[in-house]
Amino acid sequence: MNSIIVVGGSDAGISAALRARELAPQAVVSMVVADQFPNYSICGLPFYLSGEVEHWQRLAHRSREEIEAAGIRLHLDTRVVAIDPVRHQVMVEQTDHGRATWSYDRLVIATGAKPIRPPIAGIDLPGVFDLHTMQGGLALAQYLDARSVRSAVIIGAGYIGLEMADALIRRGIVGVTVLEQKNAVLPTVDEEFGRRLGAYLGQQGVRAESGVQVTEIERHGDGLRVLGRPSFSIDADLVLVVVGVEPNTELGIRAGVAQGVRGALRVDREMATNLPDVYAAGDCAETYHRLGQDPVYLPLGTTAHKQGRIAGANVTGGHERYAGSLGTQVVKLFERAVARTGWRDEEAKTAGRTPLTVQSTHWDHKGYYPGAHPLHVRVTGDVADGRLLGAQILGHWQSSVAKRIDIFAAALFQGLKVADLLDIDLSYTPPFGSPWDPVQLAAEAWEKASRAD
Amino acid sequence: MNSIIVVGGSDAGISAALRARELAPQAVVSMVVADQFPNYSICGLPFYLSGEVEHWQRLAHRSREEIEAAGIRLHLDTRVVAIDPVRHQVMVEQTDHGRATWSYDRLVIATGAKPIRPPIAGIDLPGVFDLHTMQGGLALAQYLDARSVRSAVIIGAGYIGLEMADALIRRGIVGVTVLEQKNAVLPTVDEEFGRRLGAYLGQQGVRAESGVQVTEIERHGDGLRVLGRPSFSIDADLVLVVVGVEPNTELGIRAGVAQGVRGALRVDREMATNLPDVYAAGDCAETYHRLGQDPVYLPLGTTAHKQGRIAGANVTGGHERYAGSLGTQVVKLFERAVARTGWRDEEAKTAGRTPLTVQSTHWDHKGYYPGAHPLHVRVTGDVADGRLLGAQILGHWQSSVAKRIDIFAAALFQGLKVADLLDIDLSYTPPFGSPWDPVQLAAEAWEKASRAD
Repeated sequence: MNSIIVVGGSDAGISAALRARELAPQAVVSMVVADQFPNYSICGLPFYLSGEVEHWQRLAHRSREEIEAAGIRLHLDTRVVAIDPVRHQVMVEQTDHGRATWSYDRLVIATGAKPIRPPIAGIDLPGVFDLHTMQGGLALAQYLDARSVRSAVIIGAGYIGLEMADALIRRGIVGVTVLEQKNAVLPTVDEEFGRRLGAYLGQQGVRAESGVQVTEIERHGDGLRVLGRPSFSIDADLVLVVVGVEPNTELGIRAGVAQGVRGALRVDREMATNLPDVYAAGDCAETYHRLGQDPVYLPLGTTAHKQGRIAGANVTGGHERYAGSLGTQVVKLFERAVARTGWRDEEAKTAGRTPLTVQSTHWDHKGYYPGAHPLHVRVTGDVADGRLLGAQILGHWQSSVAKRIDIFAAALFQGLKVADLLDIDLSYTPPFGSPWDPVQLAAEAWEKASRAD
Repeated sequence: MNSIIVVGGSDAGISAALRARELAPQAVVSMVVADQFPNYSICGLPFYLSGEVEHWQRLAHRSREEIEAAGIRLHLDTRVVAIDPVRHQVMVEQTDHGRATWSYDRLVIATGAKPIRPPIAGIDLPGVFDLHTMQGGLALAQYLDARSVRSAVIIGAGYIGLEMADALIRRGIVGVTVLEQKNAVLPTVDEEFGRRLGAYLGQQGVRAESGVQVTEIERHGDGLRVLGRPSFSIDADLVLVVVGVEPNTELGIRAGVAQGVRGALRVDREMATNLPDVYAAGDCAETYHRLGQDPVYLPLGTTAHKQGRIAGANVTGGHERYAGSLGTQVVKLFERAVARTGWRDEEAKTAGRTPLTVQSTHWDHKGYYPGAHPLHVRVTGDVADGRLLGAQILGHWQSSVAKRIDIFAAALFQGLKVADLLDIDLSYTPPFGSPWDPVQLAAEAWEKASRAD
């Protein structure tokens, strides 16, 4: 393989390019990036907008120089407009140099996702933003800097919506409202946690409204008015629409790549598409789920990196297989962290399992040592065979919520039973845990409940 | 089974008693405790002595009332002086009631460990303390309260010695010296970490001396003088001897329990001794090692709890097997945490493996988010088959060092390869990690080094 072209420079793209260079130092690896921001941390935008990160340039995972030092040929402001899979060519359009045709031996499509645009009248009005690219983030920052924004409405109470509520409060905006269509905020975790979190957000000055549907945004005086069902009307200086993403597949589809779940590019576990020598990875592609052993759509940076790494190995002639996602995720909101991994009850039921979810609460470390906080842990297991199916944790941001969910993830990775968690030799010292870690106490609570069930 | 007697009320004892009551609610479960302190957190003593925990009573894991509410018959100030395995009886001596003979159907010996008393002249002088029981801790507290202690020498730079150095500095004692016979402090981790930690302790005002052997303690004026090789002499108001523990086996041995590694009571994986219906668990007993699949001696609270739980199930007629220890442990020292799990290089070599240990350093979370700290991670793997053998982490105390070592422990538990760590779907958000967690970046560093090796 001589020429490898990677379309896209975000998580999947960079991991693919780096891995290809690592395994095939002789290969020419080109990374084609549509904008000027290769390998930026889009996940970091809320922390820039909050003021916690002073300069947006710091959001670069890697500098241009570092990427080039790794031997990757970086093409910025370069858009791949078409793929010719028969001729093994891509047509590119460069801001400075016009059109060109480049040949590839193997190609990785890593075009990512794009924000879902819900059917809301007035979604294109000035003052209405989404948040998915560096350009978009910088435009929002400029708007916030230039105007005296005193109130904001965030449509969508998922990870980004809630992170942005935190960010805008931190920034000093007094009136921050989050609107969610489902029954509670953060619908990626169980309603019990969503309600608890909604109440907590209220204490932090965020007005969180669930079960509402936005239908229209209109100009109102100098600002905007958000209208919806059941009948409500909120005025705001700024509206943010963050209701999720969908795969950005146009380039792949036009070239003939087959589509799978939710329209994402269909890939096998080697991240190969149906087209010869064309791979796809990251948010534009399907995700193999480790528990369900079937494709799902789970756009996450961690997944994109892992898929990119697999694609990067395979474009050099490898046959690595993606081990699969567990949907592990965590978010920090003010002083709280919420995390999940694996399946929730209803997902497990859909997959034909017999789940039981048990919630229990434990101190993050020995209560006598200063600074102990409660951790709420929900464990989902299969009552038929005792297998762990998933877990969710809600607690203080300094209670190792993220790394505790990772212990569950490591157990899920290998199909452990809930009871097996009690057998793992985990660490203990009073400032950091208990002789039985909260992870294990939660497993024990599940065990007892499942026997009583 | 009607009558179950558990000798000892610390970690192994309480877990055995609770588990027996849980599985056999009809059984009479008696827990016999030699002193007045059932189920206290001995591990918490340094934090009481430092002043971080105000009242020693808070060190109780469970109150007397909670233990009794669980249906356990608690006998305090009661010493089991002999076991008659033929008659299935124990002879007890009670402070208030004199001698008695009690019958058991099944017995759990959980007599713990006792401090090693090294051959140092003057070790019994007033002002020389060990630290292993509540009484000992309270005596030391009283001594510190009553006298104006300005200087202390700690003999032994293991976990407890270093925690006590931290505690005494926190308490305001200016001259704290730690003496270690081996080449660096904390010899349970690699010398590279020990040296780094020694330098850090110096910055915190602790004088840490390695490669020295104490031979004598003598009175000197109102205080004490500590002498040793290579020739040195240090004066101090207080001396603490904390050079490790040995199994407390006298009761078991006199009854005919066979001994194993380091003189500990020999047990099988069901925690059964050679005597019928007599089990042993915790620091008085051998520990099955999950990697070596052979008995070792590894006195740790976590291990004691797990062994106790197994013994507790089996005295009710169960046949549960102890899954094995990985020697996972963590300690907090000032603002640092140090943790390990599994084998170190030399331990793996002794076990016939071909280890390679690779150290790498990573940010605990994205560098752009405030408060990022470096994590030093040492991964030990087998170059012959790529299997993970162990890991060590040194970092800031708020960098989830403990729970990150637990991710390694969960991987070790199931015999994963180092490369498998890169496949686990771990959580990510900029305030808590990276798209590839430091655990995974360290695994990747090992992989690269092992290929170059």
